[in-house]
Amino acid sequence: MNKILLVNGPNLNMLGMREPGIYGSDSLEKINAQLLKKADELGCSIEFFQSNCEGEIIDKLHDSVGCVDGIIINPGAYTHYSIAIRDAIAAIKIPTIEVHLSNVYKREQFRHTSVTAPVCVGQIAGFGKLGYELALRAVVEVLKGE
Amino acid sequence: MNKILLVNGPNLNMLGMREPGIYGSDSLEKINAQLLKKADELGCSIEFFQSNCEGEIIDKLHDSVGCVDGIIINPGAYTHYSIAIRDAIAAIKIPTIEVHLSNVYKREQFRHTSVTAPVCVGQIAGFGKLGYELALRAVVEVLKGE
Amino acid sequence: MNKILLVNGPNLNMLGMREPGIYGSDSLEKINAQLLKKADELGCSIEFFQSNCEGEIIDKLHDSVGCVDGIIINPGAYTHYSIAIRDAIAAIKIPTIEVHLSNVYKREQFRHTSVTAPVCVGQIAGFGKLGYELALRAVVEVLKGE
Amino acid sequence: MNKILLVNGPNLNMLGMREPGIYGSDSLEKINAQLLKKADELGCSIEFFQSNCEGEIIDKLHDSVGCVDGIIINPGAYTHYSIAIRDAIAAIKIPTIEVHLSNVYKREQFRHTSVTAPVCVGQIAGFGKLGYELALRAVVEVLKGE
Amino acid sequence: MNKILLVNGPNLNMLGMREPGIYGSDSLEKINAQLLKKADELGCSIEFFQSNCEGEIIDKLHDSVGCVDGIIINPGAYTHYSIAIRDAIAAIKIPTIEVHLSNVYKREQFRHTSVTAPVCVGQIAGFGKLGYELALRAVVEVLKGE
Amino acid sequence: MNKILLVNGPNLNMLGMREPGIYGSDSLEKINAQLLKKADELGCSIEFFQSNCEGEIIDKLHDSVGCVDGIIINPGAYTHYSIAIRDAIAAIKIPTIEVHLSNVYKREQFRHTSVTAPVCVGQIAGFGKLGYELALRAVVEVLKGE
Amino acid sequence: MNKILLVNGPNLNMLGMREPGIYGSDSLEKINAQLLKKADELGCSIEFFQSNCEGEIIDKLHDSVGCVDGIIINPGAYTHYSIAIRDAIAAIKIPTIEVHLSNVYKREQFRHTSVTAPVCVGQIAGFGKLGYELALRAVVEVLKGE
Amino acid sequence: MNKILLVNGPNLNMLGMREPGIYGSDSLEKINAQLLKKADELGCSIEFFQSNCEGEIIDKLHDSVGCVDGIIINPGAYTHYSIAIRDAIAAIKIPTIEVHLSNVYKREQFRHTSVTAPVCVGQIAGFGKLGYELALRAVVEVLKGE
Amino acid sequence: MNKILLVNGPNLNMLGMREPGIYGSDSLEKINAQLLKKADELGCSIEFFQSNCEGEIIDKLHDSVGCVDGIIINPGAYTHYSIAIRDAIAAIKIPTIEVHLSNVYKREQFRHTSVTAPVCVGQIAGFGKLGYELALRAVVEVLKGE
Amino acid sequence: MNKILLVNGPNLNMLGMREPGIYGSDSLEKINAQLLKKADELGCSIEFFQSNCEGEIIDKLHDSVGCVDGIIINPGAYTHYSIAIRDAIAAIKIPTIEVHLSNVYKREQFRHTSVTAPVCVGQIAGFGKLGYELALRAVVEVLKGE
Amino acid sequence: MNKILLVNGPNLNMLGMREPGIYGSDSLEKINAQLLKKADELGCSIEFFQSNCEGEIIDKLHDSVGCVDGIIINPGAYTHYSIAIRDAIAAIKIPTIEVHLSNVYKREQFRHTSVTAPVCVGQIAGFGKLGYELALRAVVEVLKGE
Amino acid sequence: MNKILLVNGPNLNMLGMREPGIYGSDSLEKINAQLLKKADELGCSIEFFQSNCEGEIIDKLHDSVGCVDGIIINPGAYTHYSIAIRDAIAAIKIPTIEVHLSNVYKREQFRHTSVTAPVCVGQIAGFGKLGYELALRAVVEVLKGE
Repeated sequence: MNKILLVNGPNLNMLGMREPGIYGSDSLEKINAQLLKKADELGCSIEFFQSNCEGEIIDKLHDSVGCVDGIIINPGAYTHYSIAIRDAIAAIKIPTIEVHLSNVYKREQFRHTSVTAPVCVGQIAGFGKLGYELALRAVVEVLKGE
Repeated sequence: MNKILLVNGPNLNMLGMREPGIYGSDSLEKINAQLLKKADELGCSIEFFQSNCEGEIIDKLHDSVGCVDGIIINPGAYTHYSIAIRDAIAAIKIPTIEVHLSNVYKREQFRHTSVTAPVCVGQIAGFGKLGYELALRAVVEVLKGE
Repeated sequence: MNKILLVNGPNLNMLGMREPGIYGSDSLEKINAQLLKKADELGCSIEFFQSNCEGEIIDKLHDSVGCVDGIIINPGAYTHYSIAIRDAIAAIKIPTIEVHLSNVYKREQFRHTSVTAPVCVGQIAGFGKLGYELALRAVVEVLKGE
Repeated sequence: MNKILLVNGPNLNMLGMREPGIYGSDSLEKINAQLLKKADELGCSIEFFQSNCEGEIIDKLHDSVGCVDGIIINPGAYTHYSIAIRDAIAAIKIPTIEVHLSNVYKREQFRHTSVTAPVCVGQIAGFGKLGYELALRAVVEVLKGE
Repeated sequence: MNKILLVNGPNLNMLGMREPGIYGSDSLEKINAQLLKKADELGCSIEFFQSNCEGEIIDKLHDSVGCVDGIIINPGAYTHYSIAIRDAIAAIKIPTIEVHLSNVYKREQFRHTSVTAPVCVGQIAGFGKLGYELALRAVVEVLKGE
Repeated sequence: MNKILLVNGPNLNMLGMREPGIYGSDSLEKINAQLLKKADELGCSIEFFQSNCEGEIIDKLHDSVGCVDGIIINPGAYTHYSIAIRDAIAAIKIPTIEVHLSNVYKREQFRHTSVTAPVCVGQIAGFGKLGYELALRAVVEVLKGE
Repeated sequence: MNKILLVNGPNLNMLGMREPGIYGSDSLEKINAQLLKKADELGCSIEFFQSNCEGEIIDKLHDSVGCVDGIIINPGAYTHYSIAIRDAIAAIKIPTIEVHLSNVYKREQFRHTSVTAPVCVGQIAGFGKLGYELALRAVVEVLKGE
Repeated sequence: MNKILLVNGPNLNMLGMREPGIYGSDSLEKINAQLLKKADELGCSIEFFQSNCEGEIIDKLHDSVGCVDGIIINPGAYTHYSIAIRDAIAAIKIPTIEVHLSNVYKREQFRHTSVTAPVCVGQIAGFGKLGYELALRAVVEVLKGE
Repeated sequence: MNKILLVNGPNLNMLGMREPGIYGSDSLEKINAQLLKKADELGCSIEFFQSNCEGEIIDKLHDSVGCVDGIIINPGAYTHYSIAIRDAIAAIKIPTIEVHLSNVYKREQFRHTSVTAPVCVGQIAGFGKLGYELALRAVVEVLKGE
Repeated sequence: MNKILLVNGPNLNMLGMREPGIYGSDSLEKINAQLLKKADELGCSIEFFQSNCEGEIIDKLHDSVGCVDGIIINPGAYTHYSIAIRDAIAAIKIPTIEVHLSNVYKREQFRHTSVTAPVCVGQIAGFGKLGYELALRAVVEVLKGE
Repeated sequence: MNKILLVNGPNLNMLGMREPGIYGSDSLEKINAQLLKKADELGCSIEFFQSNCEGEIIDKLHDSVGCVDGIIINPGAYTHYSIAIRDAIAAIKIPTIEVHLSNVYKREQFRHTSVTAPVCVGQIAGFGKLGYELALRAVVEVLKGE
Repeated sequence: MNKILLVNGPNLNMLGMREPGIYGSDSLEKINAQLLKKADELGCSIEFFQSNCEGEIIDKLHDSVGCVDGIIINPGAYTHYSIAIRDAIAAIKIPTIEVHLSNVYKREQFRHTSVTAPVCVGQIAGFGKLGYELALRAVVEVLKGE
């Protein structure tokens, strides 16, 4: 059974409270609960991690070596400048999928750049919480293909 | 039953033949056949359209008004400069999802820009043919939410 | 009697339906009918052409050599990148006036650039359908001055 | 009867003398006289103002609040950098039309930018003195539509 | 009684020791003590927080929801790149004022950009420790106006 | 007793009338009256000057040499391009504080640049008319420190 | 016997008529006739194709797979922006040589960029119709070397 | 006898007082007196004009048509942005020489650009008040050559 | 005896595991052990610190004031954007040497910029683990020279 | 009989030894010998010159005035920055053709710019040593056309 | 008696022959002869040096230490990129004046940048051979002032 | 015994005389003498070469093929623009180390770019003459590792 890690970056603990027009009205807890069910259906396990700290996200990515088969990451604002997280994803060589809740291409110019996307398998953006589910399906398929 | 239109842009008729390391080894016909099944499972119909001509893609998008509930589009190279296709998507006001087979963020700098993404619901990139299936699921969910 | 050609580019067949807040609520047919009357008043004939295809617009411009005295063109989105249309206008050496329905300078940055304006007599932007009538007057005056 | 103000900016007092190949051979006085007739025909009054001083142009724009229904402005070189005139046009909320005698898009790169156009109704460029007449017709129509 | 939170970012714990020519010779403790008195005079309470860690600053901002009425923040170097802190300020919707001790506009080019200022009420820069006191007055006034 | 000069630049004579959502609903006269009181409280005198003309602002700054101890300036749109005003402030060597009513960092990109800020003591932006009062306190403190 | 395809892009059907100072005074038909002879001499066959439509050029390139040994292309204005034609050339893997009649490096800045050259064998520019003959020799030599 | 006009732009009335390390310690009056003598020696007359107002400088340039044979101008800060003064110099067609007291290329990046230099005969920069004398010699020689 | 601190930034704990083609196959522990010997030879002590967290690195730098004579830092990805670490190095005024294992100038464009190098004594890049030893020799020499 | 000069710039003396994958495996001597034969066939003489020194190349170009009818130049790396060689080519007014062995448009971004191409007749790039032969044919034809 | 060195850079040996419309019709020898006389009048000696080779110019500048009191340099095209000549001028600490025959600001954009001007006393451009004479006067005055 | 070549570029012959605050007070001869000793200690031979001429440096690099095992180069100002030297280093395939005496990252922006570093093993900058010794150690180690 594949083990998937879902990493949520800065401010995603505020889901439901934070600009619901952009990010939706469900809390991260609720979204995680739904994903747990979905993971069950897809025959994989899922672990949840959220941190606002770039360093802790890097630590978690490092720790996943040998324990995790695939990663879904929503790096939040770090998407746009954290070369350190990019390097961590590249270092661990675990298939990783980048997710954004909002369609970042509809928003400020600085949100159109992702420094992490080039080291991920792919990117899914603009579908709200559904994006995590799509990523879960994607990572499961990607792992099958390996 | 929702009607979905899948629009493939320039050079996607060459799938299977064209740089398979980047775009995969299945032909567009084979991919479409698989999507037809998937659409069936998801309870929607799907129509296929491919053209290398910017103007024909725009015509097709216009014609879909009143006939189509959701659109999946892989604008190929037009992604990066066809403001005309962007304007067509904005004009028809049908929920549209942008798909790229390859992870465009891993490739040349000019492929990191999408002029069409800002008028789409969202974007899915880097998952090969699986991207179309994810988009199909996404568009079905988006239409449910309307 | 001067013969004027009015060329409308991509998505202008959608007038009336397409974002009426920006482009007005009249259809292209209705606008053309009004211009026909105006042409009559101004003592010139007017021919209408619309296409979403860059290549067809170029073909039409080429075909107008020897048949048309002046051209009014709304290149739509092609304004911003079609060097091919620019070259066609430069090649045929028929006085050409660029028209935009919306005030492009109020909109996205990429709409502030016109690759076609430098080979036109002048540009009229921001007056909705009235812009075509102003252009008609202008082209008639320009032809008088030749 | 609508009252229209025509504001001409720096160096436009030199019309007829200044690079006639670019700006035409009529003096501003002669152009104004012709516009006066045209205004008569169109059933509106017209007032003329020219200044080389950015501050005086701003003062005049402020003074027009409550006295003037529409404005035609050729900001000359200030078009390209006077954010102060832009702010004045935005502040007074009187429909304003920007006119340029020459086709600025055929000239130096720095003349392709207008800081004032985004706060005007629209822009007319490249038709010599005819541009003022077109603008007069346009402003009359715009005021009708309000 | 309004509760104000003062957040100081990276290297501000070094005040007094760090380049006193630029940042002044008082320690952060001394400045805080003076602000406590000032808060007293202005009839509000003030809480102090300093961290060199982007993630801890975000955590603190999140924690202030429901406990704090207004925020004064000197994001230090994070001002220039921490989109994550920007998003945190936007998420919590508590009136926030940005303060810089030095006149950042007199220094290196990269210090002229603030990614956090657009989500704050306003910015005060260049007045040394006096800036905090001005910000305290400002936030009290802003809260009165709500 | 310190003598303070308050210089307001272009369009600030329109306060109360001009886009009150951005600039507030008080007239400049009313704001000045309130500042006069505040100056009294702070034990300094204050002189008011407003002009829409860059040259007059420069003249006024020159004239203040020997008569004025500190300056508060809101250069309005000139903030973004008047190197001439910048040079005047640098030339007269009187402590000067830049004030903006609106949070310029929330607005158009071109308002994020200040050519005058690098020669001022500091900048206060985004607090409406309160900004002038904060600047008055600041300049009084700065003069004490000299 | 090698089969060579010569593709001429937009506005090249206007040769002889279009700005002869830049593009020469021979018609495309006449140039093709001369190339036919030259091909004969060089022992290869040559097929001619011209279109103003980006999509048709792409279709033609696709159709040449399996029928054509080498390609000479003058993409005209599409040189500067048609990533779709670039992708088509890359997809078909037939040795392709880019030709420009004029020395594009002597002309407007935007003509100095070629998006197609990086996927061609090489580029020949500035020799008028002679360029096609040089390209014919080049492609024959390149095919010998394979 | 040639009549020369010397135009000094903003802040040059402050010479002697303003940053003497950069601009020298002589007042403009003293410099003018020395130039008067030099003009005498060179057999030409010289008229002096200084203004801080862009519009007044333009007015003066216009007024010099027919009265003045050559112009020396130090546009001060307007050098870097006053396209209006540039257009005035171009309009009057009197040989004009640009002078800067300081070596502008040693100073801030924005002082390296001159919008007026391209319409002048030449530029002299970095020699303090000697620059005016060099320009006087130069303009006398240029006028001889006409 | 000089005390040297070696700070390794994000992902350097992964040495040996992480892209050995770029970063070498020795673990950080092994490299540290070798440096310890080298320090012994050079007559200085060395302390090791690694963290993936920007804030912890800043804390460590602050803590070294008064305890450490020289610093060797490999800021990893933070090199390219952590102005906060730059400010920390500048604040503590301890001679600091920047080391990179790989030749950053051979890699992606964004790795060619160092925001920390301008506040260091110097930079050593491209020599793998040997770089640390060179830096150790360098810092010892620099401290001798003080 | 036309006299042709072939100028090879820096590092071209290393041909055969230098990165043969990019530049081919023939030495310059061998290539020159082949060109000598080709020149014979084409009825012109050819002189060979190679230097790594920008100044010597300029000297040679100057010396060719009056002795040489046409020039073929491969400026090597100087292509991208030697405005001095550009000026020399422009000064001597001898028809000059630029050749590059490799397809510079496939390589690093800085090789896409040619400062010399705008003053040459044309450019041939990407055909290895064949490029010199094509250039020889081209220059012979160009000289015929004069 | 001051010793002045006049350094002319690349292509200036071609004066009289090279684009006389831009650079004048006198040879460098003739210009030098005239300057010799002028130097005599001004009571200084003058030595002439011309080279097309960057390295020789640098050598000459080095050799002038201890032999030369002032330098006039026209670095020709090297003006725009030779940081090596810039460094040589800075190294020798002899007052140096930069001269250009043409008004470089009227020409191509790349000629508007001088890398050498910031280390010179000043720059004189646009006066043809007269520029050298003006520079001679200037350097004599500058040396008097030392 | 490894043979090392030390190449010093433009203006480095002026060491000791040239801006000693930046480059140190030892002459190149003295530095070379010290390096000779160091080479002895490290069991390698060292040859010294200095030239101000780009072409001579390239010649020397070419000549070192087959005679030299490793190269240390301080390309001086050529670092920032000599693509020709870059190409020479790439062509000869001898391990090369780039050294700068000063910390180029502390100086002008144009000194932050190295066109030669990407083809070197690594770069050492900011340690004055010690940098050469570090490079000597480095090159010896690199050669051991081959």
